[in-house]
Order: sequence, then C-alpha cells, then structure tokens
Amino acid sequence: MSTICETTLRVRYAETDQMAVVYHSNYLIWFEVGRVELLRQLGFSYLEMETDGMNLPVVEVKCRYKHPARYDDELTIRTRLAQMRESLLRFHYEVLRKSDGLLLAEGESVHVVVGRDLKRTHLTEKYRNALQAAAASASSATPSCTTQS
Amino acid sequence: MSTICETTLRVRYAETDQMAVVYHSNYLIWFEVGRVELLRQLGFSYLEMETDGMNLPVVEVKCRYKHPARYDDELTIRTRLAQMRESLLRFHYEVLRKSDGLLLAEGESVHVVVGRDLKRTHLTEKYRNALQAAAASASSATPSCTTQS
Amino acid sequence: MSTICETTLRVRYAETDQMAVVYHSNYLIWFEVGRVELLRQLGFSYLEMETDGMNLPVVEVKCRYKHPARYDDELTIRTRLAQMRESLLRFHYEVLRKSDGLLLAEGESVHVVVGRDLKRTHLTEKYRNALQAAAASASSATPSCTTQS
Amino acid sequence: MSTICETTLRVRYAETDQMAVVYHSNYLIWFEVGRVELLRQLGFSYLEMETDGMNLPVVEVKCRYKHPARYDDELTIRTRLAQMRESLLRFHYEVLRKSDGLLLAEGESVHVVVGRDLKRTHLTEKYRNALQAAAASASSATPSCTTQS
Repeated sequence: MSTICETTLRVRYAETDQMAVVYHSNYLIWFEVGRVELLRQLGFSYLEMETDGMNLPVVEVKCRYKHPARYDDELTIRTRLAQMRESLLRFHYEVLRKSDGLLLAEGESVHVVVGRDLKRTHLTEKYRNALQAAAASASSATPSCTTQS
Repeated sequence: MSTICETTLRVRYAETDQMAVVYHSNYLIWFEVGRVELLRQLGFSYLEMETDGMNLPVVEVKCRYKHPARYDDELTIRTRLAQMRESLLRFHYEVLRKSDGLLLAEGESVHVVVGRDLKRTHLTEKYRNALQAAAASASSATPSCTTQS
Repeated sequence: MSTICETTLRVRYAETDQMAVVYHSNYLIWFEVGRVELLRQLGFSYLEMETDGMNLPVVEVKCRYKHPARYDDELTIRTRLAQMRESLLRFHYEVLRKSDGLLLAEGESVHVVVGRDLKRTHLTEKYRNALQAAAASASSATPSCTTQS
Repeated sequence: MSTICETTLRVRYAETDQMAVVYHSNYLIWFEVGRVELLRQLGFSYLEMETDGMNLPVVEVKCRYKHPARYDDELTIRTRLAQMRESLLRFHYEVLRKSDGLLLAEGESVHVVVGRDLKRTHLTEKYRNALQAAAASASSATPSCTTQS
C-alpha cells in the first residue's frame, strides 16, 4: 500500500493563458488528479466513496507557485495524505517538471467528510482504516504509486 | 416577451490561451450564458426547469470562429430559439465584439428534454407554451432582452 | 477612487460539479474577476498594465470555503488590495451570496510584478501611485465600485 | 507512421456538472488532446510547430453527443486527419468508453495555418509532407498510436 503517489500528466493547450504559462487555477484540478490516484492506490476509488455516501468537499486550499508550467510539459503530481482526523483530511501536493524534477508548485487541500446532503458524516471503517494507515506512514514513505492520468 | 436575447460579458484572463486569444471551447460556455438569459427573459429560469424535473442536455453543438475574442473584450451574446419540436430545441448564437459590433463567432446547439434519470420526457405546458411562442416569433423579433452576466 | 470593489457575477452551469455545487477551482477565477475590476476602478485596466510591460502572475493563493455556491446564484466578489510592497501585491477577496449576503468563501492572492520575460521588474510611477493609495485606504474604505462582469 | 491515434484519458471531477455527467465543452479539450497526440505520432509536436511559427487555430468545430461520459470513466479519444488542403486541416474524433467501447461522442474540427501574427501562412515542407501522408492513409489505417495523456 503506497502512501505517496506520483501521477504523470501533460499540460493541455486549454490550460495555458496569454502569459504563455499555465493559468494558476488549473493546479487545483491537478491536485484533484493526484488525490484521486492516491485513493485508488489505497484500494478504492473516490467514485466508490461517493456511491457509499461519503463526499470529500474542499474546505481550504493553498498553492505556492515557484516556476511556471508550460504547454506540453509533462508533470509529476506527488501527493500524500498529510493529516487525518475524525472527519477531516489534509492532503499535500508537489507539482514537478518531469524532465528535470524542478519543483514548480506545492500546495495543500483540507477536506471534510459529508453525506449526499452535504452534512458532516463519518467515514465507514473500510475507508477510515485505509486512510489512517496512509497518513501514519506518509512521512516515512517513498513513492510507489506511478500512474498516468 | 423577448425572443432574441442580448447578453453582455467580459472575457476573463482564464479564458485566454498562449496564442493570446480566447481558447475555443469557452464559446460553448458563453452560449450557455446566452441560452440561460433567453429562458429568464421568457419568464422562468433553467434552474426552475431542472427543479421541475426537466433537463436540456446538449446533443449537438457547432461553432464557426471568424475573428478571435481577446482578453478584456466586452462581448455581446445574441441568442434565439431557432427551432422547437416536441422534445427538441435548437438555439442559435452570435458572439459580437461590443465596441464595434464585429461578429466573432456563430453557432448552434441542439438539446433534448430529459428527466432527472436522463431519459426522454416532455415539457410541461407552462414551458412548452413559452418556448413555442419564442420559436415562432424569433425570426421576426428584434433584441429586447439586454442583461449582463 | 474606490479601494474596495464589489463585482457581481452569476454562477454558470459549467462551473458546477456532480456534487451540485460550484467546483472549488472556479473561485480563483472569480478572484481574478474581482481583481481586474478593482484595477479598473483605480483608473486603468490590467490589459493596459500588460501592454505597458507589467504582468502580475500569482505566486500564492489561498481560499477557505464556508458555504457552497450553487448554479444560477448571483454572487458578490468583494476585493481589496490588502498589501503593497515594492513589487509585490496582496489582494483579499470575499465571495458573498447576493440574495442574503452570506459569506461563501474568502481568500487571498499574492502577485509579483514581472516583465514580458517573466523576470522581476518595477511598477512605473503611474501604477505604483494608484496602487499605493488603494492599499493605504483599503482598511478604512467602504465599497463604492459596483460592476457586473 | 500512424494515421489514426488512440489516446486514453480519465474524466476529472472538475469536468462534471450538476447533471452528474461531463459538461459538454470539455469534449473539445479532449479533441485537442487527441489531435496533439496524433501530431506527436507523426514525428513532431504541436509545440515545435508553434516554435517554427505555425499555429493551427480552430475555425470550426462540431460535436454530436450520444451517451454521457461520467466521472472517473476511462475514455479513448480516436483521432484522424480527415482532410488536408493547402493551409486547412480537418480532424475527426471519436470519444469511446474504454471499458466497453461504447461511442459516446464524435466530432470534427477545422484549422487554418497562421503565423504568430494570426495571418494565413503555409506549412513548411517538413510538416506538409507528414500531414499529407497522414491524410492520405487515414481512411485505410488501423489505430497504432496508443498513448495516455
């Protein structure tokens, strides 16, 4: 079971802006790609969680941009579950340029667990156990999940 | 009751790409803005239609791009209901640069009426009557709905 | 000269996700709408700044989401220039539901001044004076700029 | 040299809307992903073309939607160059659900060749030869390019 997930994606033309770099809000969508692949690596999909009545809306997000991502760049999104409490999850992300490993951006997102009615709920045991194990070992882990999205 | 609707919007930086023009898929989102304001002009909102169990997914869309829209341009989206059959609607759109009226793009979208289950359904009388009247008079109408979105 | 800017916009269908709320990255695009209208209120446009060789890329962004924005909601984006240093600007944003004034989200963005080559540069006097005045008075100001985008 | 290109991608949460299907404008972005991978298969990248002073803006686009794509679906974008004239290219696209091969949508885009100034120009020999060969053989080809984006 991997606790740091590395996903590769390629910058789309639609994601650039007239400064000839990626428009900054797209990094948040890439964070989602990384998060979803981390969950898949833990043995389930976010789709399954939703079907089981658990949603993870974002309640807080941060991103620091260090170097611009550019059109057609291949990027690595490195994701880990940095914190896990009762019904709150904090993910940490790094966006790296794949060709040379340069760190382009890093960020965090905080999520709460809610039901279909958007009211707070609890993770069922299956998900809680997998996520707690991932959070516990994330600090000591080396990336093992490598996917392309 | 207006049957041609003119809505104004301003190009966002996020909508540009590295060619320093608007990325082409954004016009489809502007079509949606125009369509929604046309419905509002007819006396109801698309939100109400959905609440009443009628959705209008797009089954076909076309756009011809004549001149590029650019960052910070103010645009006029001119929308009319070009055709209305039992449970099929065809809208026509023109995107004009507001400053000089230059036609930047024109397009069409075709929609079917479906329920929450995405299965074909019929418009209730309230909506059918309003839409049929709009389609009937669209060819002879002059724009009267002017909104900003 | 206004130093707090209130801009109104309406949630687009394209901005929603399958949780039936606005997808979280769209708030960053709305922040941009608010920022651009604040600059316009100060007497110039961001387009002019770019033409004059000054770009303001985002180097950091944060957002805290309190209540979901929903399809067709009218929103008020309340923007102020919270800090202004040599070649660094910090904007603060509140996203409110227009119907009842409920605070849906708040956030910040930090920008540096760069030239067309993306290297650090300085604001020319025209822009620096206007922005310094805006930052100085933002804390005591009441909204006076009301635009629709 | 392949003349039909099959690229795989996964539907992002950001691409869904509150009907719990993919918002229709995103298919145009997927078309771009397919087109870019087809060019790469021909031995060059669109990035190179731009660097060499040739851009391919979209002048017309069509899409017919047959079945909805849904969150987390893996999709195959099957792209071919349907027509190639002096400085006009027409691409054809099919979007298939990877799990069962169901055709979800098909479409076309027409592009003209322009320089950095957005004025009409000609393809240099290198690109023209590769693209003409691709167009000539597209009707008889079987997919051989399989990439993940």
